[in-house]
Amino acid sequence: MQTLTVELEDRSYPINIGAGLLNQHSLLQAALPARDILLVSNTIVAPLYAPAVRAALADRRVVEVIVSDGEQAKTLATLGRVIDVLVANRFGRDALVLALGGGVIGDLAGFAAACYQRGIDFVQVPTTLLAQVDSSVGGKTAVNHPGGKNLIGAFHQPREVLTDTDVLKTLPVRELQAGLAEVIKYGLICDRAFFEWLEQNIDALKRQEPAALSHAIFRSCQIKAQIVGRDERELGERALLNLGHTFGHAIEAATGYTEWLHGEAVGVGLLIAAAMSVRIGTLPAADLARVESLLKRAGLRTGAPQIGAATAARFMSIDKKVKSGRVRLVLLDAIGRARISADYADDALDATLRERFGA
Amino acid sequence: MQTLTVELEDRSYPINIGAGLLNQHSLLQAALPARDILLVSNTIVAPLYAPAVRAALADRRVVEVIVSDGEQAKTLATLGRVIDVLVANRFGRDALVLALGGGVIGDLAGFAAACYQRGIDFVQVPTTLLAQVDSSVGGKTAVNHPGGKNLIGAFHQPREVLTDTDVLKTLPVRELQAGLAEVIKYGLICDRAFFEWLEQNIDALKRQEPAALSHAIFRSCQIKAQIVGRDERELGERALLNLGHTFGHAIEAATGYTEWLHGEAVGVGLLIAAAMSVRIGTLPAADLARVESLLKRAGLRTGAPQIGAATAARFMSIDKKVKSGRVRLVLLDAIGRARISADYADDALDATLRERFGA
Repeated sequence: MQTLTVELEDRSYPINIGAGLLNQHSLLQAALPARDILLVSNTIVAPLYAPAVRAALADRRVVEVIVSDGEQAKTLATLGRVIDVLVANRFGRDALVLALGGGVIGDLAGFAAACYQRGIDFVQVPTTLLAQVDSSVGGKTAVNHPGGKNLIGAFHQPREVLTDTDVLKTLPVRELQAGLAEVIKYGLICDRAFFEWLEQNIDALKRQEPAALSHAIFRSCQIKAQIVGRDERELGERALLNLGHTFGHAIEAATGYTEWLHGEAVGVGLLIAAAMSVRIGTLPAADLARVESLLKRAGLRTGAPQIGAATAARFMSIDKKVKSGRVRLVLLDAIGRARISADYADDALDATLRERFGA
Repeated sequence: MQTLTVELEDRSYPINIGAGLLNQHSLLQAALPARDILLVSNTIVAPLYAPAVRAALADRRVVEVIVSDGEQAKTLATLGRVIDVLVANRFGRDALVLALGGGVIGDLAGFAAACYQRGIDFVQVPTTLLAQVDSSVGGKTAVNHPGGKNLIGAFHQPREVLTDTDVLKTLPVRELQAGLAEVIKYGLICDRAFFEWLEQNIDALKRQEPAALSHAIFRSCQIKAQIVGRDERELGERALLNLGHTFGHAIEAATGYTEWLHGEAVGVGLLIAAAMSVRIGTLPAADLARVESLLKRAGLRTGAPQIGAATAARFMSIDKKVKSGRVRLVLLDAIGRARISADYADDALDATLRERFGA
């Protein structure tokens, strides 16, 4: 087991990464030091892993909320259901919420923990690659609004993250590939050597070779933990982690959060960010080709849905990256060097959107 | 104008108290430094004071959300409506929420600001005595759940509080009296001299004599600001501010949040807390009589609704003051000295509840 710490003063917490962690009863018992535990999971993950968690916590009161699989569970209505269960069981401020699932479950359960009684503890047990490398780390919680993703939420740090790499064995290939988009993102943002390591090891990752997978997860979490530790509430640098996300969120919203996995949309978003960077002259065209090639080898989609540039722009404008009416974009100066910019030519953005989303 | 500061490091903010503040355009403009402003108010207050606010902010984009008057507006559904308006107007992270109203409006608007895009700024302009002395200060925001009050919320500090004492002239007498319950609470918790000042000035306060009112509001805010500054998230001392509230919340919840004003329920709650303190022998019986007398002179109810001790106990147990299954009570050692206790005789609580709520 490897342990990283997200350094946030009194909100610091460990991320434990290793194979078979869910079968270590003492580890679960120590991570979940509460009498009353609300286990939030979905219909796919709960049958697979809730029994192991329940076995480790046999002496606690564990109540389950099982929601449907997929992004459609991230609504204010579902949040209300989770809160209803907390209230119905008279859970107090010392109760704990356990998120057992992917990013949707972590975001939903984390937000429920953030606002129930103005904040109770929660623990993340991420079961998708995407959640393991991204959404379980950093305390962003939220539900969606019909007008845009993650528009209702809170910063609420977990007290611990338990990442069992063995659970990826039951993850559908499509989901694993979606997670790789976020891994590639970290290389693009700030670690060219990691990007090159990914170019060399992408096939091993797709085959789920344990050593490669462990390294990719650990390095991804390490990069994210460092950035979050310096800028918890996204006042500056943390926005770099949104590389590909403003475009990706537009894809997800325009297609109703059902056709595209988040990671798939982010993958295309990375490509569009790179294309825009080439268009404004900061990124060499050859690097765009490398990004596209790596995404393809990871099994990810590279063509955006043909929703039209105007629709894409509309969904981008409600994204949280808007400041003073202008969308801030994360763009690339190089592979391994991203920057936040509101100072780009509108023409270049329009042309990029038309090229990728259709006129 | 008098100014107090709530000292919370990077979340510190001023409370400005004075007569006629809402007519000072420059004050409102400085307090609300955003292009896009969501004004949240209710059907009673908006016609009275929204025009003055709009006049001061003529150069901004001010969008209004007007909800019904009363506690029934504090629901997850109404929160959804407020968020819908923020989204529909494409308000970004730099938008600002202005709460113009009493405690319900402040709690609802503040929680909307807390969770929209994971937190945007908000400003409180409290228009009831209760909001001016209590709910506008300290950053507690929330909506209610059918199972209990304020069960869904956040700690989210305003960037400024503007308290115009002139607005109390349009406040119904019953609401003014309800606010006095919270004022009396501050004396009971930690300031015997202030309690005695209230005994001498209660009639002047009921007549709304400006000097008396200003002093009562300033001293109340000062006490609250000091306590909140030392314990923002209610890990300890801040719970003292809940004196009377666990009993009061049970009254409000058991009567559906409609028959009792919050302050009225708190007033009875103060009396029950004092009665319980007499029963366990920490408070002299003569002090209970003084509390009852002051509440009566303030025009407040002193008889609890006859909902029965069992019902009262049930509603108390879902209140947020529960820890490890036991209700923590705020009790009195003297007038001017409260303490938090989970270490009381259950028999004494049962007897107190039977005496006050009926068998």
